[in-house]
Amino acid sequence: MTTTTDASPGPPSARATVRRVPDRAAYDRAAAHAVLDEALVAHVGLATDDGPVVVPMLHARDGDRLLLHGSPASRLLRGGAKGTELCVTVTLIDGLVLARSAFHHSVNYRSVVVFGTASPVDDLAERRAALDVLVDHVVPGRTDDARPPDEKELRGTLVLALPLDECSVKIRTGDPVDEPDDMALPVWAGVIPVTTAFGTPEAAADLAGAPSVPAYASGYRRPVPGPVR
Amino acid sequence: MTTTTDASPGPPSARATVRRVPDRAAYDRAAAHAVLDEALVAHVGLATDDGPVVVPMLHARDGDRLLLHGSPASRLLRGGAKGTELCVTVTLIDGLVLARSAFHHSVNYRSVVVFGTASPVDDLAERRAALDVLVDHVVPGRTDDARPPDEKELRGTLVLALPLDECSVKIRTGDPVDEPDDMALPVWAGVIPVTTAFGTPEAAADLAGAPSVPAYASGYRRPVPGPVR
Repeated sequence: MTTTTDASPGPPSARATVRRVPDRAAYDRAAAHAVLDEALVAHVGLATDDGPVVVPMLHARDGDRLLLHGSPASRLLRGGAKGTELCVTVTLIDGLVLARSAFHHSVNYRSVVVFGTASPVDDLAERRAALDVLVDHVVPGRTDDARPPDEKELRGTLVLALPLDECSVKIRTGDPVDEPDDMALPVWAGVIPVTTAFGTPEAAADLAGAPSVPAYASGYRRPVPGPVR
Repeated sequence: MTTTTDASPGPPSARATVRRVPDRAAYDRAAAHAVLDEALVAHVGLATDDGPVVVPMLHARDGDRLLLHGSPASRLLRGGAKGTELCVTVTLIDGLVLARSAFHHSVNYRSVVVFGTASPVDDLAERRAALDVLVDHVVPGRTDDARPPDEKELRGTLVLALPLDECSVKIRTGDPVDEPDDMALPVWAGVIPVTTAFGTPEAAADLAGAPSVPAYASGYRRPVPGPVR
């Protein structure tokens, strides 16, 4: 079964419209937000003079915009006053789909693609708030405990904001879909479920004193229920 | 602790050299291959007239080249006779790194970035062999059981090959690294391990007869030990 949903506030823009397998395309804003909120990494693409570049970055949704942070990308993403044109793709793998025929093997997944122009968050108070959102995206509640950034750290951090106006979500769920002629083949068919698992927190070797493991770490799971934004 | 390794056969090209945090940069071919072999999804970036685009694709390493397959990208990737310039990034998340300070929060990860020009695999015999490698990358042994592609299916499939000449790998492992002044803070610090988990295979609702669940499905795990290529 293929789930299709609708994510745009209005008609999707031409490039955000998935042209192939359109019945799998989806534009449901809520579905897109759920994928962005669950995922731990975003792949950020930009065009450079040397060709396309894709870098993994930390992301967090803040209402109707996507925040991005990642020092490795700084040199590429600092951009200019008019911002940097990006494509940000976030993918969650939910299952391996084994069909009777090699051709129909597939993957159950949820994927969001966002197009737009990212701008640096320059105001320091706004940047600090954005960093809180980024940290709490990964570990909700952590900003209540961690030492907040000082001004030097804030100034040394690049945070980008990208509007979520132009985004699409694609979702595949369910069983393999095989050709009628293949249905009687004596070949096992089905789905191997895939999830992200979180282990027992491991204290840092140089942890001083004996602070107890916080509940947000010992009971860690995703998707993390967060405030409705 | 930051692990750095070296992945290039020779000196890395300028754009494959990670310029930021160079001690984390790594060019170890074996490390890059291991990441590509373990991961289930690649994020493929290309420059289009409408700006950068990043699509998730199935990948598989075939010796010193990377095979790519994914119908959603067909319209973008069919390219011309001279191929399509790509950046392919593959990321595995291994842990959430909770530092005493918000600023030093991080993620343990392994990431490979490949730059190059991808060419369609046009020869049908070669394409069929490439599809076998792609299916067996996801589920080793599956091509022994699944009905092989017929000529029509083969002709309708796009497979790209990208040389692995220009690639880099970055790896972060281990504990958070905090500022000396923060070491005595009464804040728990450490790592929440992250792995990909595979559940009990679920037979398709329309599975005919009662073929037993194959061992490659019931005992599924990654990384999958494969043939040395």
